[in-house]
Amino acid sequence: MAKRIEFFYDIGSPYSYLAATQIEAVAARAGGAVEWRPFLLGGVFKATGNTSSAGLALKARYMFADLTRWAQQYGVPFQMPSRFPLNTLRPMRACIFGSQRGLGGELALALYRGYWVDDVDITGDDGLRAAARSAGLDAGAVLAACEEPAVKDALRSATEEAVRRGAFGAPTFFVGDEMFWGNDRLHFVEAALRRP
Amino acid sequence: MAKRIEFFYDIGSPYSYLAATQIEAVAARAGGAVEWRPFLLGGVFKATGNTSSAGLALKARYMFADLTRWAQQYGVPFQMPSRFPLNTLRPMRACIFGSQRGLGGELALALYRGYWVDDVDITGDDGLRAAARSAGLDAGAVLAACEEPAVKDALRSATEEAVRRGAFGAPTFFVGDEMFWGNDRLHFVEAALRRP
Repeated sequence: MAKRIEFFYDIGSPYSYLAATQIEAVAARAGGAVEWRPFLLGGVFKATGNTSSAGLALKARYMFADLTRWAQQYGVPFQMPSRFPLNTLRPMRACIFGSQRGLGGELALALYRGYWVDDVDITGDDGLRAAARSAGLDAGAVLAACEEPAVKDALRSATEEAVRRGAFGAPTFFVGDEMFWGNDRLHFVEAALRRP
Repeated sequence: MAKRIEFFYDIGSPYSYLAATQIEAVAARAGGAVEWRPFLLGGVFKATGNTSSAGLALKARYMFADLTRWAQQYGVPFQMPSRFPLNTLRPMRACIFGSQRGLGGELALALYRGYWVDDVDITGDDGLRAAARSAGLDAGAVLAACEEPAVKDALRSATEEAVRRGAFGAPTFFVGDEMFWGNDRLHFVEAALRRP
């Protein structure tokens, strides 16, 4: 059976965006499969006492240069959005719905493109609708899902599960019980996937 | 003229240890040279308001697994020392003296081995002497240097200089004005060195 990468991501996290652009290729190279797992980074920070790396002004400046280097290495577009940081509650609920319909990766990538490339307000109805359509989902169903208790609960549960398993930031990857943190650990994720 | 990597390191930083085992090879591959630049990570934290990643218990646990993965990737020994974290004031002063005598890298690597491999108390006279000898330095001169005002000042200046240039953690690398942070950015350091 093909091994699985559980990819815990939040659309608001720039390093998760970078990882999202690579994760399917990583899995494909190693003969594995990606499970796109939306969670709420704000909830993880609250539960663990961790804080964003961008909190310190000096680090934030460096982070922008670093993100640009990674985007160049991967050959993907990247720009800092005019809205940052973002409350990603609605987009992440939408991602839960996308995963339930088997289009989790497609919707996540559409939202990532909207936020980190085209500077779209992906928390508003128009932005959510555009991403939904581009992922092949019914736009009205996606907007409705953001208000559904079952969807809200699923996002909360996923966040709690990630914390319980040791997560403290994003992106977080699991290959079985092994946890990896950060876009810059994808080579370790790939190695774990290849291990017999 | 060969390009130069300025390598700001503290013996107490495990990711600096990992980088120290690779940095000469990185420079050699890219036709550059390493300038070993001792600084005091505690001073950097104090000046920038940054804190150690190991501060959060969850992160510390993950960090150990991560360090072990890097050590395996590099094929270098690694174990958590019984004394951690460490006040590295004396060893870092010793490194300043080592650099002044043209044996900065040799002394740093001897101290790294003592602390991160052999669990030696490198703040004590015996540990400092052993490292000094293994680096080809006079052990008495190294111990004396730890008390010299000029050496103390040089360490303080190097730390202040790093902060002024944007450093907030260790290891920090500069290629010209470009700054890179972390053992996991050595591929960017190498690329900067190769750039015409």
